[in-house]
Amino acid sequence: MPYFDAASSLPLHPVARQAFLAALEDGWADPARPHREGRRARLLLDAARESAAESVGCRPDELTFTSSGTRALHAGIAGALAGRSRVGRRLLHSAVEHSAVLHAARAHEAAGGTAGEIGVDSGGRVAPGEVAAALGADGGGAALVCVQSANHEVGTAQPVAEIAAACAAAGVPLLVDAAQSLGWEPVPAGWSLLTASAHKWGGPGGVGLLAVRKGVRFAPPAPADERESGRSPGFENIPAIVAAAASLRAFRAEAEAEAARLRGQVDLIRESVPRLVPDAAVVGDPVRRLPHIVTFSCLYADGEALLHALAAEGFAVSSGSSCTSSTLTPSHVLNAMGVLSEGNVRVSLPPGTPAAEVDRFLAALPAAVAGVRAALDAPVAADGRAAAKADAGEAGAVAASVVVDSLGRPCPVPVIELARAIGKVPVGGVVTVLADDVAARLDIPAWCALREQEYLGESPAPVGAAYRVRRLS
Amino acid sequence: MPYFDAASSLPLHPVARQAFLAALEDGWADPARPHREGRRARLLLDAARESAAESVGCRPDELTFTSSGTRALHAGIAGALAGRSRVGRRLLHSAVEHSAVLHAARAHEAAGGTAGEIGVDSGGRVAPGEVAAALGADGGGAALVCVQSANHEVGTAQPVAEIAAACAAAGVPLLVDAAQSLGWEPVPAGWSLLTASAHKWGGPGGVGLLAVRKGVRFAPPAPADERESGRSPGFENIPAIVAAAASLRAFRAEAEAEAARLRGQVDLIRESVPRLVPDAAVVGDPVRRLPHIVTFSCLYADGEALLHALAAEGFAVSSGSSCTSSTLTPSHVLNAMGVLSEGNVRVSLPPGTPAAEVDRFLAALPAAVAGVRAALDAPVAADGRAAAKADAGEAGAVAASVVVDSLGRPCPVPVIELARAIGKVPVGGVVTVLADDVAARLDIPAWCALREQEYLGESPAPVGAAYRVRRLS
Repeated sequence: MPYFDAASSLPLHPVARQAFLAALEDGWADPARPHREGRRARLLLDAARESAAESVGCRPDELTFTSSGTRALHAGIAGALAGRSRVGRRLLHSAVEHSAVLHAARAHEAAGGTAGEIGVDSGGRVAPGEVAAALGADGGGAALVCVQSANHEVGTAQPVAEIAAACAAAGVPLLVDAAQSLGWEPVPAGWSLLTASAHKWGGPGGVGLLAVRKGVRFAPPAPADERESGRSPGFENIPAIVAAAASLRAFRAEAEAEAARLRGQVDLIRESVPRLVPDAAVVGDPVRRLPHIVTFSCLYADGEALLHALAAEGFAVSSGSSCTSSTLTPSHVLNAMGVLSEGNVRVSLPPGTPAAEVDRFLAALPAAVAGVRAALDAPVAADGRAAAKADAGEAGAVAASVVVDSLGRPCPVPVIELARAIGKVPVGGVVTVLADDVAARLDIPAWCALREQEYLGESPAPVGAAYRVRRLS
Repeated sequence: MPYFDAASSLPLHPVARQAFLAALEDGWADPARPHREGRRARLLLDAARESAAESVGCRPDELTFTSSGTRALHAGIAGALAGRSRVGRRLLHSAVEHSAVLHAARAHEAAGGTAGEIGVDSGGRVAPGEVAAALGADGGGAALVCVQSANHEVGTAQPVAEIAAACAAAGVPLLVDAAQSLGWEPVPAGWSLLTASAHKWGGPGGVGLLAVRKGVRFAPPAPADERESGRSPGFENIPAIVAAAASLRAFRAEAEAEAARLRGQVDLIRESVPRLVPDAAVVGDPVRRLPHIVTFSCLYADGEALLHALAAEGFAVSSGSSCTSSTLTPSHVLNAMGVLSEGNVRVSLPPGTPAAEVDRFLAALPAAVAGVRAALDAPVAADGRAAAKADAGEAGAVAASVVVDSLGRPCPVPVIELARAIGKVPVGGVVTVLADDVAARLDIPAWCALREQEYLGESPAPVGAAYRVRRLS
């Protein structure tokens, strides 16, 4: 049964499993102890550090193991900010970072610091010029810039080398969150701090990496202890660390050939989805991207329902839509990109995915989307483009303007009601949608772009907002 | 080769190994995902939580898994303090807690809170009346009290139920660090928060427990995420969690019988060491104690050298002496107890330790101590009691008072020089030792008690301190 959620977590790599079992025998003791068992554990830990440092491209004494990628981000951000608190207390990060960065930014603000977001284009990409502008010639009081190497939801790769040059010119350290890319691609040059997470490359859960370049000011967050250079408190899980390092090496050895193969499958999905599914849009940078992640959104579809429909066909995928995974807001990534969030599906292919599985997925997708839309009574005709006019014909009466009250209705209902109403006004007429679901702010403009209608903007309303759309065709 | 450092870490329990391997297949996905792989991981996590909660004696929704016992303490202390910050910002803890508690206390002070230590008797035990006195009738502004169930260095069990009653009477929550006892003994009643660490009971590294009773105010430290009730951020290591829970159950099932057996071996060590080794003292409460830990100190011996001498004989033990594990100060536990720290050895027996190994250890110990003492030219004669007089005879000249300059000399040299000098004064005469090694403050009074000489106290000196001793015999 195809598992297409590799960006979330991968099963243990066979090499990781072997390394883990071998390290269980010698890696359970406290590596800080001078006795035989402690020294054996220390040898394993040192060897894993050397191996991982080589994969990362840093010195072993620059690399520490944390208990997760999230912890690596939390410690890296807090440590770099504290180390430079005399210079400034401003944290800059892209708007599409992992939520752990956003949480760290909120904690920094709560402690009296400031945080600023650097926006992205509709492909999810940061412009190096915007980083340079935010920093100015002297850094502008920034203590740290955080940018991921590639996005976890849409696969867009960031221009890390250019961003690093901008940071270096302003004298501000750059933290690169390499969680999604480290297994796949060489780490771009120029980082000051780098973080990653082992279960993204077939290592076990419970292991993150935090590398801090020599010379970067760093004050480990308290409470600390003497383990991992004071940067990651608590007893080390050495068998897991050994497995993580071995798996990183093995994964990267296979990555180039596998990336070329998966890139072909991802290209097929990117090309096929708009053709096979009416009113669907592929999101993320079309060229500068990870090899294995592709994301698309489907008008008039509920992301949660679509996940379940695909799961019923045996496909494990992920979604950044609202109403999924106990959240009621669309993913902050899709939000920052300003793209359609409803009916969102992320496909992230594990190494070894057979082409036939992708073919099966593409074969099953149209019916899955159609089923979800039908359950919502969505206005999609067979050719996907005739719906509005068909509605208009059925409605009979035509008014110059129509107000649709979607207050209290969750995504994707406001967009569905907009699509129904557009046929009730003449070309040139205006539909106003009253909605309080937060996804409407993203999805109504996206609907206009997809359906080639004119988005006139939103205005405040007593509850929620009023979104105005002019019918163009 | 005997491993007697169980209180530091244990090899993986066979049940933990089996559980780990079984959980590897189904426990690698993100348990927050709704797909099949995610749901399988969630089922394993839920089952592990139920099992561990039953072992702890709490509800599953009161229990969260952390990435170590240290992290459980850090999060538990910070969360409880933040949850009660309107009531008060004072943290009270015993003077013999795990260093993670002391680190959390320092971090709390750095953030503007206050911390206070509750002292222990020479056996390492907290008096419940002292807790009650520190809290007063209304808690005295205390937000939290931290007391371990049993000490990790000397094995002393704390009167947790009585301390809990004192806390309850004052309306202050009690955090019990059960890291050393949870595998061995029922958890004493009355705790508000409880922490533990899986690698102490044959679980893997990388898993701690934090239980917070319903109704206890708790504000998780930031940055947090949505995992583990917001109390432990980062991707869960589910196979390790499953192994930890299975191991706790298996360890406890064997604990009662095994504790009775090991208690006999520990009693044998406690009884034998003072008989076999001249000028050695067993430390820790003689009765109210863990079954498997015994600690003693040896006059005129360097703890680090003694560890190595025992390691050369194949025995892996631990030490709270200064000059071990890269620290230059004696263990804060021995310090708080006011007992001899030099030549300190902790023996902590793993389950299944054969009696013959303990016999071999007792047979090897006297020569190991004697070898270390000989290397330091320590004044110990064959019967261990005649040294001072023999020295006096050889010295010939006798002065009414002598000053020994041990400035710049590390432990155990100041005590060795004191022992040599005592024979140079007549009975009633005074030896003054100038020393700047911090262990001298602990070890000179302890020497006086062991050798039945009179400790007159210390006074400040330009460097270090002057310790005065009157010869009584």
